[in-house]
Amino acid sequence: MHFALISKVLGLLLVVFSFTMMPPVAVSYFYQDGSEGPFLASFVISLLLGLMLWLPFFRHRAELQTRDGFLVVTLFWSVLGVIGGLPFLISADTPVGFTDAVFESVSGLTTTGASVLSGLDTLPKSILYYRQQLQWFGGMGVIVLAVAILPMLGIGGMQLYKAEIPGPMKDAKLTPRIAETAKALWYLYLFITVACASAYWLAGMTLFDAVTHSFSTVATGGFSTHDQSMGYWDSAAIDWITTVFIIIGGTNFALHFAAIRGLSPLTFVRDPEFRFYIGMVFLYILLVTLGLLAFNVFQGADETLRHAAFQVASFSTGTGYTSTNAAAWPGFVPFLLVFTSFLGASAGSTGGGMKSVRGALVFHHSIRELRRLIYPNGAFALRFGRHTVNDRVLQAVWGFVGVYITIAVVFTLLFTVTGLDLATAVSCVAASLNNLGVGIGGVASGFADISPAAKWMMTLLMLLGRLEIFTLLVLFTPLFWKQ
Amino acid sequence: MHFALISKVLGLLLVVFSFTMMPPVAVSYFYQDGSEGPFLASFVISLLLGLMLWLPFFRHRAELQTRDGFLVVTLFWSVLGVIGGLPFLISADTPVGFTDAVFESVSGLTTTGASVLSGLDTLPKSILYYRQQLQWFGGMGVIVLAVAILPMLGIGGMQLYKAEIPGPMKDAKLTPRIAETAKALWYLYLFITVACASAYWLAGMTLFDAVTHSFSTVATGGFSTHDQSMGYWDSAAIDWITTVFIIIGGTNFALHFAAIRGLSPLTFVRDPEFRFYIGMVFLYILLVTLGLLAFNVFQGADETLRHAAFQVASFSTGTGYTSTNAAAWPGFVPFLLVFTSFLGASAGSTGGGMKSVRGALVFHHSIRELRRLIYPNGAFALRFGRHTVNDRVLQAVWGFVGVYITIAVVFTLLFTVTGLDLATAVSCVAASLNNLGVGIGGVASGFADISPAAKWMMTLLMLLGRLEIFTLLVLFTPLFWKQ
Ligand SMILES: [K+]
Ligand SMILES: [K+]
Repeated sequence: MHFALISKVLGLLLVVFSFTMMPPVAVSYFYQDGSEGPFLASFVISLLLGLMLWLPFFRHRAELQTRDGFLVVTLFWSVLGVIGGLPFLISADTPVGFTDAVFESVSGLTTTGASVLSGLDTLPKSILYYRQQLQWFGGMGVIVLAVAILPMLGIGGMQLYKAEIPGPMKDAKLTPRIAETAKALWYLYLFITVACASAYWLAGMTLFDAVTHSFSTVATGGFSTHDQSMGYWDSAAIDWITTVFIIIGGTNFALHFAAIRGLSPLTFVRDPEFRFYIGMVFLYILLVTLGLLAFNVFQGADETLRHAAFQVASFSTGTGYTSTNAAAWPGFVPFLLVFTSFLGASAGSTGGGMKSVRGALVFHHSIRELRRLIYPNGAFALRFGRHTVNDRVLQAVWGFVGVYITIAVVFTLLFTVTGLDLATAVSCVAASLNNLGVGIGGVASGFADISPAAKWMMTLLMLLGRLEIFTLLVLFTPLFWKQ
Repeated sequence: MHFALISKVLGLLLVVFSFTMMPPVAVSYFYQDGSEGPFLASFVISLLLGLMLWLPFFRHRAELQTRDGFLVVTLFWSVLGVIGGLPFLISADTPVGFTDAVFESVSGLTTTGASVLSGLDTLPKSILYYRQQLQWFGGMGVIVLAVAILPMLGIGGMQLYKAEIPGPMKDAKLTPRIAETAKALWYLYLFITVACASAYWLAGMTLFDAVTHSFSTVATGGFSTHDQSMGYWDSAAIDWITTVFIIIGGTNFALHFAAIRGLSPLTFVRDPEFRFYIGMVFLYILLVTLGLLAFNVFQGADETLRHAAFQVASFSTGTGYTSTNAAAWPGFVPFLLVFTSFLGASAGSTGGGMKSVRGALVFHHSIRELRRLIYPNGAFALRFGRHTVNDRVLQAVWGFVGVYITIAVVFTLLFTVTGLDLATAVSCVAASLNNLGVGIGGVASGFADISPAAKWMMTLLMLLGRLEIFTLLVLFTPLFWKQ
């Protein structure tokens, strides 16, 4: 392990992160909300901490190795998670302790969007802005993690995408490769954010709301500046814009990149994961629409379809916005919505869950097993799009899915130990592990009232989900620390 | 497909099965309960039906092929399931319709033990005997299925056990092989049943109760002749006897066979699945005991441990007896119990669930994936006891686990569509798919009150669980029916 190098990298990240406290200061001055103090304090703390980690080693020249990657990525998210909580902890407008401050910050950065705050509409603009910005920067980190880093680390079969990492790198070294890829992806991310903000603004949001909600939309984050989330506007236009941009955010950004470079929308149609992802979204919309019609929840077909599409997009990508009180929808519908988040969005997106590509591979694999029962001596290669999936990738996918489900079940039980009923416990797991952020049952109106133990479990699960479990889990093996 | 041959085999099975209606007739005469009519009628119907299927083809000489096996096994359980329901349908003492009659019968034969009947204590002895006998014969079928047939068909990785099928066969033909294996296993099964019945009788049960409960104990079936199940006696001796024999029933019968032949109890210790199975049972007992102590459910440590061990054994093997009102235990404990049934008992046992061997392989595989992240170029063979598990077996295991969990989730949602809450829906899935038979929440006191749709779904899931899903699923692929 190159601890000197890791300290340097982490220090540098903290120095960069400290400057993200400045836009909220600007917002505070602009709206004269008198709330710049906590951000300035956090800026100083973060900057000093970063320099302390960086300065002793700034002359250090070594290449990060793949194995260092696990530690850097985990530290990146957990340290920024704690530091990002400082403004909440310091500000008198958010009367939260350490547990809640870290929960809110990690929830923001991992683009989870679960909140322990309420009365959002009366909070200072700067704090509202800061929460949204946490998600936006978190989304930037997620994309680079998901498109470039996880495939390189080989997490959960993501080496499948190794050849498709955008940017001119292939055999370059780790750091410049990631830097090149990141730059390409962030331009794209910025472009989509601007498009989304413009659409919101044209549909009637204030500029502040348009920008801040575009942040949490493309990040599939789900934070809002209103307690009612998107339901605040009750606007068909805004709901449909959100639905579309959520689905864009839940799509592999490497695919967006390829489609734009090739100027071909057919790129999407040709991608087997995208087909599976969109296919499942349409299937869910159909089922939820039928459910809503059966229970006569809305007056017309228009409104039914609008809310069904919105909530399906929101839950299945792990965004967590609400256009209406979906947790109170009758019968099976809320359960279905929660369960869609386990499969989740596409790999390489800002979305959550196990990812569609893994679902698709598991599905194809199971079909192959059926075939093998009939022809035990047949050779059935597993085709996925243009690729033949090798056994190694498949085993990594299965290992991931197995551990993911095991963690989901074990934590569901642990949440019931803290006193929650089963539906609420499942909802807490989905909200955190799938980076969904929204709950049903006992946590339908937020996570402020669950026990501190449950909050820390959720914080851990948010990180586990975002780091696709193995990045973090591998640190707990003795083998990792052996020279 | 050899339809003539399949008709012949199925006809023969029905003829044999028809004679299982005679012991209840004898019981009816012995106890003078006036309830012999339904059994005599069922005997005649079953015999005639069997002859109709058998006679046209009785001169037919051909060997059953592996592929025919899927169809024969599925027909065996589903046809006997329907026919076995005749006595319930005909008898005036069990006022049930077709749905409930088939539910009860399939529940018996698959050793599930979920019941739609109540007021058991007042039912005629012959009907009570018949239900218990359904489970015992079901258990005989399950053992042969699990030890001999599933490994031959290669279901869910069970080809792992192909070399360990007891009996002098290896390269013999399918039918005589299965017949030899069955004979060896049934002697063993009978021996354990007699031992269990004797223990019950010595512990204070009447001879009738001792025999009938030994039937449902070694079959890990869970039917009882009392509404209170084993709680009827409230006897520590009976509870511990049950716990021990349930665990025996949940152990691989090929392992029992090997241990007895080698006169070595070490055989169990050397078996990696047995170690995993027993290890999990002890872990669950520890957790449940801690839960019961934390909530102060019982007075003393003795009673706490006794009920904890009983209920863990009952749920984790998929037996479904109750020694006390465990569904009303506080907090997380009932959820934990229900979840233990998903992993379930050992392969080659009468128990239910996904089976410990698959859990153990999934666990070892996940550990290997973690190692691979650290040493991407290392070669890590998957060792399981003395064997190296090949990729083909592992893929079959994963395919099985994936489909199993998918079916569990989809049916949980379908049960909520029928109006059940989430905990009850999960409980219905566990009770049926894991062949557990007992429920919590809305089905804690039986399954009489759920909707007919839910009952048919449970009936399907009982069969799916017992046939380890793929046996049945494969029949729905076009490939299977292609010549
Ligand atoms: K989210
Ligand atoms: K059972």
